[in-house]
Amino acid sequence: MSTILKGIAASNGIAIAKAYRLVEPDLSFEKKQIDDSSNEVQRFKDAIASATSELEVIRNHANEKLGADKAAIFDAHLLVLNDPEVISSVEGKINDEKINAESALKETTDMFIMMFEQMDNEYMRERAADIRDVRKRVLSHLLNVKIPNPSLISEEVIVVAEDLTPSDTAQLNRDFVQGFTTNIGGRTSHSAIMARSLEIPAVVGTKTAIEDIANGDIIIVDGLNGEVHINPTQEVINQYKQEKEKYEQQKAEWAKLVNEKTVSKDGHHVELAANIGTPNDLQGVQANGGEAVGLYRTEFLYMGRDQFPTEEEQFEAYRAVLEGMENKSVVVRTLDIGGDKNLPYLKLPEEMNPFLGFRAIRLCLEEQDMFRTQLRALLRASVYGNLKIMFPMIATLNEFRKAKAILLEEKDKLQSENIPVSDQIEIGIMVEIPSTAVLADQFAKEVDFFSIGTNDLIQYTMAADRMNERVSYLYQPYNPAILRLVKMVIDASHKEGKWTGMCGEMAGDEIAIPILLGLGLDEFSMSASSILKARSQIRSLNKSDMEKLAEKVLQLQTNEEVIEAVKNVTSL
Amino acid sequence: MSTILKGIAASNGIAIAKAYRLVEPDLSFEKKQIDDSSNEVQRFKDAIASATSELEVIRNHANEKLGADKAAIFDAHLLVLNDPEVISSVEGKINDEKINAESALKETTDMFIMMFEQMDNEYMRERAADIRDVRKRVLSHLLNVKIPNPSLISEEVIVVAEDLTPSDTAQLNRDFVQGFTTNIGGRTSHSAIMARSLEIPAVVGTKTAIEDIANGDIIIVDGLNGEVHINPTQEVINQYKQEKEKYEQQKAEWAKLVNEKTVSKDGHHVELAANIGTPNDLQGVQANGGEAVGLYRTEFLYMGRDQFPTEEEQFEAYRAVLEGMENKSVVVRTLDIGGDKNLPYLKLPEEMNPFLGFRAIRLCLEEQDMFRTQLRALLRASVYGNLKIMFPMIATLNEFRKAKAILLEEKDKLQSENIPVSDQIEIGIMVEIPSTAVLADQFAKEVDFFSIGTNDLIQYTMAADRMNERVSYLYQPYNPAILRLVKMVIDASHKEGKWTGMCGEMAGDEIAIPILLGLGLDEFSMSASSILKARSQIRSLNKSDMEKLAEKVLQLQTNEEVIEAVKNVTSL
Repeated sequence: MSTILKGIAASNGIAIAKAYRLVEPDLSFEKKQIDDSSNEVQRFKDAIASATSELEVIRNHANEKLGADKAAIFDAHLLVLNDPEVISSVEGKINDEKINAESALKETTDMFIMMFEQMDNEYMRERAADIRDVRKRVLSHLLNVKIPNPSLISEEVIVVAEDLTPSDTAQLNRDFVQGFTTNIGGRTSHSAIMARSLEIPAVVGTKTAIEDIANGDIIIVDGLNGEVHINPTQEVINQYKQEKEKYEQQKAEWAKLVNEKTVSKDGHHVELAANIGTPNDLQGVQANGGEAVGLYRTEFLYMGRDQFPTEEEQFEAYRAVLEGMENKSVVVRTLDIGGDKNLPYLKLPEEMNPFLGFRAIRLCLEEQDMFRTQLRALLRASVYGNLKIMFPMIATLNEFRKAKAILLEEKDKLQSENIPVSDQIEIGIMVEIPSTAVLADQFAKEVDFFSIGTNDLIQYTMAADRMNERVSYLYQPYNPAILRLVKMVIDASHKEGKWTGMCGEMAGDEIAIPILLGLGLDEFSMSASSILKARSQIRSLNKSDMEKLAEKVLQLQTNEEVIEAVKNVTSL
Repeated sequence: MSTILKGIAASNGIAIAKAYRLVEPDLSFEKKQIDDSSNEVQRFKDAIASATSELEVIRNHANEKLGADKAAIFDAHLLVLNDPEVISSVEGKINDEKINAESALKETTDMFIMMFEQMDNEYMRERAADIRDVRKRVLSHLLNVKIPNPSLISEEVIVVAEDLTPSDTAQLNRDFVQGFTTNIGGRTSHSAIMARSLEIPAVVGTKTAIEDIANGDIIIVDGLNGEVHINPTQEVINQYKQEKEKYEQQKAEWAKLVNEKTVSKDGHHVELAANIGTPNDLQGVQANGGEAVGLYRTEFLYMGRDQFPTEEEQFEAYRAVLEGMENKSVVVRTLDIGGDKNLPYLKLPEEMNPFLGFRAIRLCLEEQDMFRTQLRALLRASVYGNLKIMFPMIATLNEFRKAKAILLEEKDKLQSENIPVSDQIEIGIMVEIPSTAVLADQFAKEVDFFSIGTNDLIQYTMAADRMNERVSYLYQPYNPAILRLVKMVIDASHKEGKWTGMCGEMAGDEIAIPILLGLGLDEFSMSASSILKARSQIRSLNKSDMEKLAEKVLQLQTNEEVIEAVKNVTSL
């Protein structure tokens, strides 16, 4: 029977392939007394050996396809797997208590897990998670149960899951994974952002995909309309094949624009930039003709580790990005941690409303050692390209002044140590808090540029947590209140001869782009995969017409009226 | 030795009296075998009898001084205290197990508490708290330990506590409690708001008052400057007695204004209204010359109960307030629940950021039965006075339209049932979400009035939880961004011939009042106890001067600059 699930279009494109369910395997077993303990020890040794070679394959594959940083987690797993203390304890149990290897493994690792989990240190608690992972793998070999391993997928599939974690998505092999669909998540959830960055069609938030889809079902993921077809008729498949082809052709058209300028029909140039998380993302930026990096999220440098990255490590990453962009503009956002993003080695207090709490620049102004190390690394890297430094979550002028003063102090220190620092570094801020948008005229006198962070700006302006489904109807990018704040920021910057960019989801949105062009936005920063489409759209628009459109929508009353008005004027 | 603690000035005035520490008593005891069980049973019966008569005194006292609703909790305690099942179980244990009454009481009540706490129903879990309270009281009689009982205080004292709960403050006897000081809390915490409503000088957030102050110490609570003096010298006491007298004189001066109009020096009238929570608060409104009720918080009708209040109960409360105000304006805010305010009988989902979540109108538009019942009660009461209905947390025009449509539906229904409804009811909204302030010109076309809720408006505009101490530096009422939003709202309302009030803490603040007068605010709604001082201040100001001040501060850059500018122009 053919079924259609409705979900949220999270990443453009159409995929047609067999379903691959990424689910927890059944690794249950019974505790048993055994007679032949040396045979049982051998079973255990074999399982360790197979798990080891399996992990090595995965590790090497991750290293090759995804980079050394993603591969590191498997190195950690290999260490745990071959820990002599664990191995001898399991073997001891088998020999002394005459129990089966599964039980001996479980009892031993339970003890280690409990020990690690009780430690008052998040890093150690994460080691408990490693042990669980490794135990799962050894058990799967003991029980001959296959555990799904997304990094080993070797045929064309569509991944179906409850949700995808960062580590799941990190392991997806772009060559084989054609698309994915999940039960939960929204357009700005982690899995959706990853899908766009990997350019894999995806539909999230289907609520029931994992229940409704069996392994091997033929699936169509329609990432343009947010639909998932399960076992469609041949007619539907043919229809979608045509759609897919049409979309591929459109993409091919867009691809021709890779070296073109982003210029409106009437000759106005804007900059199309990319949001990146690591130096590895530069490949996608270049492939898609990004004219700049509009947002380098430095959080990734700090994550998945047990201590702060050193100044040297940071310097290398920043230098790599700056050199890679060959004098094109690179806007680096200083550490935006806290809220929903925490570091295991930085203890932060529990907060009742973390999105309204101690995060980003608020935290950096307190934890100055951490902040200064990052700034030094940035300043040292500044001579290798065109660096712009941006502070996140600025709410008051005093915060900006404090942050800038610290930056200038570090610059002075470096110069007195005879370390070269560029004199051309622009210093700007994210505008993602309503107070800063409303006071943009005053900020514009002191900053070099603004970059509007729409994800947060919308959530604070509407007082609605964008991750909370019960109020998601209030996440309204086109609400005239939001558009008016955007206008205030752009106008304020131009009045002082400064520029304004935008690095939230909205910058790459086809409904928003005509309005933003009309409002005079200077730089649009988005997922690299959205750049060519945006360039094509902007080249089809007259800025003068969009100015009239913008003027009109600012006087409308609702999000819906604005969408309507944009559709009436453009070809959307 | 004399010590001075610094805290937050939470309620004006000066108090000098002995300290009364409101702390948990030591009710520890040992489990013992006893020989004479009939004697032990008698001890238990005596303790029950003394606890009963003590509770009756407290109950009657609360009923007389604080109203039947506050007394109800002690009725509940009396029921638990004399529960035959509990009593026979304790006596059975004493007789059968030959253990002391304390242990028998503890073991029996532990069982009941555990039973209630495991129930999946918050109301039942609260019954567990009642049993704990009653057990504490009986134990105190068995052990001859005095438990502090704020409602029985019969000499002049200053209450010193870690924090004061709503039920603690409800029991404070205004005749004897001269002031209070706490370790925790801020200017907008519950205890601070209660202090202002009771007109008791208070300093909160001292961090160490409960550790530093002993029972009987002489204490000065300086609620004007946020200081607490412990065992001051006679010289300091004399000084403060003078200060206190000066303040009392000033209050006496202010009191002369109780029947005066609130008119600026150059003849501009504004309305000074009061925020209330229950009909009982009307007494304070009248005593302080309130010209209206600018905010009736209806949440209290829904709290401390096990089910929704009926339409009839609500009708009676609304009617009492409307009649009590004798045709003066009464602005009733519809239910603002959720966020940090929950009802035991209304299950709401856990939220990661409750302040950005499913609350107030968002909830009412979903839980329509609850909402419609309140609206019917309000509509029926409307013929008894001058009712204005106000919806909280409106973020979009569509929300307002939906809420208004429901209200009009209920009005139609009542009229078709021949139940009289006023035709003069104004329908307005709280402006406490940035989007609504920014789009006020559009809202002004459809609402009858605005009331600016500054507590929330500030926290959303600055993206800083006002209860979170680590970001409390961002709670900046005078930040020019906030003042600009206030101006947008006032100007928008006037352009459409509507009016704007303010019902947050800011409306009664002496630094804010000159600016708000200059911006043209029509109605200032505050704690009743702040009204006379505000009236005196406004009568000393020229509106035309304040207009110039307002114009100037809107162009400043920081909160601090605005405070400075106000002080330069006024006598503050």
